Amino acid sequence: MMLTVTLNTAVDLTYRVPALTPHASHRVTDVRERPGGKGVNVARVLAALGHDVTVTGFAGGDTGLSLRAHLAAEPRITDALTPAATATRRTLAVVDASTGDTTQFNEPGPDITPAEWAVFLDSYEDLVRAPGTTAVALCGSLPPGVPVGAYALLVRVARAAGVPVLLDTSGEPLRRGVAARPDVVKPNADELAVLTGSQDPERATRDARRRGAHAVVASLGADGLLARTPDGTWQARPPAPVRGNPTGAGDSAVAGLLSALAEGLPWPERLVRAVALSAATVAAPVAGEFDPSTYEALLTRVTVTTKAPTG
Amino acid sequence: MMLTVTLNTAVDLTYRVPALTPHASHRVTDVRERPGGKGVNVARVLAALGHDVTVTGFAGGDTGLSLRAHLAAEPRITDALTPAATATRRTLAVVDASTGDTTQFNEPGPDITPAEWAVFLDSYEDLVRAPGTTAVALCGSLPPGVPVGAYALLVRVARAAGVPVLLDTSGEPLRRGVAARPDVVKPNADELAVLTGSQDPERATRDARRRGAHAVVASLGADGLLARTPDGTWQARPPAPVRGNPTGAGDSAVAGLLSALAEGLPWPERLVRAVALSAATVAAPVAGEFDPSTYEALLTRVTVTTKAPTG
Repeated sequence: MMLTVTLNTAVDLTYRVPALTPHASHRVTDVRERPGGKGVNVARVLAALGHDVTVTGFAGGDTGLSLRAHLAAEPRITDALTPAATATRRTLAVVDASTGDTTQFNEPGPDITPAEWAVFLDSYEDLVRAPGTTAVALCGSLPPGVPVGAYALLVRVARAAGVPVLLDTSGEPLRRGVAARPDVVKPNADELAVLTGSQDPERATRDARRRGAHAVVASLGADGLLARTPDGTWQARPPAPVRGNPTGAGDSAVAGLLSALAEGLPWPERLVRAVALSAATVAAPVAGEFDPSTYEALLTRVTVTTKAPTG
Repeated sequence: MMLTVTLNTAVDLTYRVPALTPHASHRVTDVRERPGGKGVNVARVLAALGHDVTVTGFAGGDTGLSLRAHLAAEPRITDALTPAATATRRTLAVVDASTGDTTQFNEPGPDITPAEWAVFLDSYEDLVRAPGTTAVALCGSLPPGVPVGAYALLVRVARAAGVPVLLDTSGEPLRRGVAARPDVVKPNADELAVLTGSQDPERATRDARRRGAHAVVASLGADGLLARTPDGTWQARPPAPVRGNPTGAGDSAVAGLLSALAEGLPWPERLVRAVALSAATVAAPVAGEFDPSTYEALLTRVTVTTKAPTG
């Protein structure tokens, strides 16, 4: 059983409008709603691959009920969310049908109380220490009220329990989390540059390891993944540029890395799985989903190149 | 006890963003949520005036639960909504803090089944025939699945029960509803022009009465209300142009008309109340609310002019 943590879960709404005109009134022609937040997205990809996965974090208010109802309908996902008094946030993507462009609105998230945070921590410790837990992913932003050092604490709990832990966040929560020595961090190029002050992925991944991460897997868009690890440094690329919607590609990469980490696969195989899942997500017609046959086909076609020795 | 009917209830969301930029990602800095739909707005104004009011229509899904929770928190409002399987719609107003402009998104509303419509009709008949029911307002658009002649039927039920009925809708539901001879219809200038084909309010209100309405009260924005009734024709105006947000001004006018209708006040007093409430809503800092002291002050300052005899 893998565990994903989403402290700032969401209900993701998508509105389709004929054309977006600022300051006008729009008739929404199609409304879609699905469970969201990065760790929830990772869990859905893992479940689609046939893995059992437990989801934790916070859920509150009517949006929290809606989120939990969506999760209950998904096979292979166990809901271990901690109740919160304040409502789970929504995210809204408004799709302009005339151009295909998307305008995004993100609510800030619930104000988690110290008491709720304490209840979550107890629950998280139990989940991490449960005998069947094989790997943990800590994903996404922190809602207001959660301490900025939250991920550092969650990393330490996982490491003390001997469970591999992957961290995918940004800004100050990433900076503090890295210092707690997670097994893997998966920043994108922008997040890595903010963390290290360097725009050069080679230099920046080296710096991120020096800051504490055992392995750094940087997602570089069309250039695939650059992984700097205790076992070596690799670049993994899709066989050709993939056209489509990059929404959720990073979460699919995390799902690939986490499942391969839980299985104890060597790094090149982890990277092949992550790049294939990520590219299959970009190519899928629905944002955040992946196409299983594209994924299977890509598994044999992702290229992995050994880079300079680990710095 | 007054009754308001909102077949297409809503949860009204307001997002504040620093500036609206199409195709960009926005951090929402403030989220407000309140119960919505025109009849619900009318009920909230009536309750704020100290009247007991019952709200009916449909509520479904998690948004329906949210709507009902909001209504339960309002004093003097009784929730008599009929459950529906499909979720109540949301409306979203995105306020651009840099300009104050609003961009509006309206979900289409739930697909009401024939069985749900039948359950509502039974409940509505009971509510209208209850001994304490003094007046009924039928407000707003029809959700998908509700027959286009719905308001005509609801008007007939109220008239058969001897309860005064006011209709505030638009398009084909208004056209059919007017033919069922409601006591009052309250179109705005655009709705009246669509109904009658005339841009001239004098001519158009006369035509709307010919189509079946006993009284027609046209809301003409800054020009106040033009009322053509069996007792005479009047124009009621605020003492000076009111600056502010016109959202909800029409619903406040309906609340003023309905309460005065329930009390059996003569037409000029009904119009004074409606114009004062409407202007106090435009002047209020929060959209759709009204300022009680502005309302009290305006009650003595609205002017009512007798127009040509009823045509």
